[in-house]
Amino acid sequence: MQTAHRINELRKAIEAEKLDALLVSSVPNVSYLSGFTGDDSLALISPGRQHIVTDFRYAEQVEQQCPGWQLVVRKDDLWSAVSSEIEGNGVGRLGFESVHLSHRNHGRLAAAVEGVELVPLTGTVEKLREIKDAEEVEKIQAAVRCQEAAFNEVKAWLEPGVTEKEVAREIDDRMRRHGAERFAFETVVAAGERASLPHAQATERVVAKEDTLLIDWGARRFFYNSDLTRVLCLGSVNSKFERIYETVRHAQERALAVIRPGVRFSEVDEAARGYIRERGYGERFGHALGHGVGLEVHESPLVREKNEERLVPGMVFTVEPGIYIPGWGGVRIEDMVLVTARGVQVLSTCDKDLDKLTL
Amino acid sequence: MQTAHRINELRKAIEAEKLDALLVSSVPNVSYLSGFTGDDSLALISPGRQHIVTDFRYAEQVEQQCPGWQLVVRKDDLWSAVSSEIEGNGVGRLGFESVHLSHRNHGRLAAAVEGVELVPLTGTVEKLREIKDAEEVEKIQAAVRCQEAAFNEVKAWLEPGVTEKEVAREIDDRMRRHGAERFAFETVVAAGERASLPHAQATERVVAKEDTLLIDWGARRFFYNSDLTRVLCLGSVNSKFERIYETVRHAQERALAVIRPGVRFSEVDEAARGYIRERGYGERFGHALGHGVGLEVHESPLVREKNEERLVPGMVFTVEPGIYIPGWGGVRIEDMVLVTARGVQVLSTCDKDLDKLTL
Repeated sequence: MQTAHRINELRKAIEAEKLDALLVSSVPNVSYLSGFTGDDSLALISPGRQHIVTDFRYAEQVEQQCPGWQLVVRKDDLWSAVSSEIEGNGVGRLGFESVHLSHRNHGRLAAAVEGVELVPLTGTVEKLREIKDAEEVEKIQAAVRCQEAAFNEVKAWLEPGVTEKEVAREIDDRMRRHGAERFAFETVVAAGERASLPHAQATERVVAKEDTLLIDWGARRFFYNSDLTRVLCLGSVNSKFERIYETVRHAQERALAVIRPGVRFSEVDEAARGYIRERGYGERFGHALGHGVGLEVHESPLVREKNEERLVPGMVFTVEPGIYIPGWGGVRIEDMVLVTARGVQVLSTCDKDLDKLTL
Repeated sequence: MQTAHRINELRKAIEAEKLDALLVSSVPNVSYLSGFTGDDSLALISPGRQHIVTDFRYAEQVEQQCPGWQLVVRKDDLWSAVSSEIEGNGVGRLGFESVHLSHRNHGRLAAAVEGVELVPLTGTVEKLREIKDAEEVEKIQAAVRCQEAAFNEVKAWLEPGVTEKEVAREIDDRMRRHGAERFAFETVVAAGERASLPHAQATERVVAKEDTLLIDWGARRFFYNSDLTRVLCLGSVNSKFERIYETVRHAQERALAVIRPGVRFSEVDEAARGYIRERGYGERFGHALGHGVGLEVHESPLVREKNEERLVPGMVFTVEPGIYIPGWGGVRIEDMVLVTARGVQVLSTCDKDLDKLTL
């Protein structure tokens, strides 16, 4: 993986904060910067050098995955290994990831590097990760292809009488057969009234004739994630379901229509949310409109009312309005989009017409 | 799930620390105490009451899963929701989980509950979790059964020509078919020399005749995990492999033979490690002998040289000596054990005889 340009960007941030070095403790951030795909390791980046501090288990893997990085294999305590590197490099001001260092480890770090000024940073690497480079977009697209191929097969396979769990298993296995390393998150399969739980885990509930089936699933491919939601209908739907489905679908279309560089996230959110509110379901849409997707399935930016940041080409996020009614059920339609120079590219291609989702 | 006895135990710890309440932020700890299986939620336990602070998405689920708990659905900021509960209950000394609260969230909590004394705790709930109750042991055994059934099927299915990834996919899918919710961790399949990477991810490497194949896999069932490792041999093995395999196997037997209540973890570790050292491979066994398994696949206690704690009935952990030689390969044999009143029960039943692992 080409990561030199990412480290160059990060060094600008290090310079802006007047740091002598930055300690990166978030697993996906370490992976983003170095290409290393294991865990339990730290990256230490200074203007002239970059180290990965890991343990015996990962030494060989770091050497294979991270050319240009100095490997530090800790013997025992992580913080004394970090401290040796820091002292050997004359660091006076050390940045750390405030969100990704526990209260406990912050105390240990402070004790290990006594005299070094610790500077809490939040979102520094995450901010870089918001904008995907071409290689990242390709990996995300590959993940979307795996998950869509699986979904289309399962749509053909699905019949009343199977359980939610069987549907989830079938999707997951087929994503793997299409090249996914794994599911991006535990596949949600929620029949009928269970769809009012936005994060319903699949159960032994049998899918019946005339049921609706909310499926929220995603693949991980080349360590990048994807995330979509569709609702399938087994047999004809009633008018209430259709009204709610079309409301959600129209809300999503409104949001997609406003996406282009320079627009605020809050405006994208409001395009969908305002429409759902107008239609009388404002109280039934309790989550953000979307979230960034990349090395993590939920990452920055968050597409929500309070985010006044502006869209930038290269951002990839979900657009997923929903309406949830306890005791009745729920509808969510989720797609993934890429902000382009002039507008938006929807990365997912699964059908959204209700008649094409009706089996 | 019956969790009242767990909360009673925790209340003793709260009393011992002279706390007015404890804020639990670790997802598995919240799950252990309350039965809630979602995430992004906090538990607040005081002598007389217990709250779960969650968001819209999980409100219905908490009500279903946590009878006896007070549900707090936060509107927006988590810390102001926590602060309202704390102020409403006259809390002066509040414990928090130092390992499971980020530096950043600790700062936010401190700002939200100004005037409340924050007391960092480590391992309080984890310590309770070390000793499994009968329901937990049953769930772990169910996970072991899923993973063993899958392994035995894959052993029959396996032939030269498949890739590591195909083997991993096959194991994972079969675990699901046998009832697992998911894999406990990304299944490790490492052919030949790749087995020297203790955490090798499965690749497109084709498994050849005469290859050895290290498989480290686990299932999650009813939210409890299991974790085993075996090495399969495709065809006859050479004498070096056999010598190393038998060394690891014998090391494991030595460790199993000393497990009983009252023995120190360090003694269990040394029983295996000392033997490997005697045989000249001391430098090739770089990790701990084992780890607790339960709601997390890696949890307390750690079976290692420096752990002077003593074994107690109800503890469940792995025993997994290994020898890794870069460029040549590796052998690890991992089983799961339960400490009983008088000794040890090995929870896993997969063959370990080299001739039964040779296809």
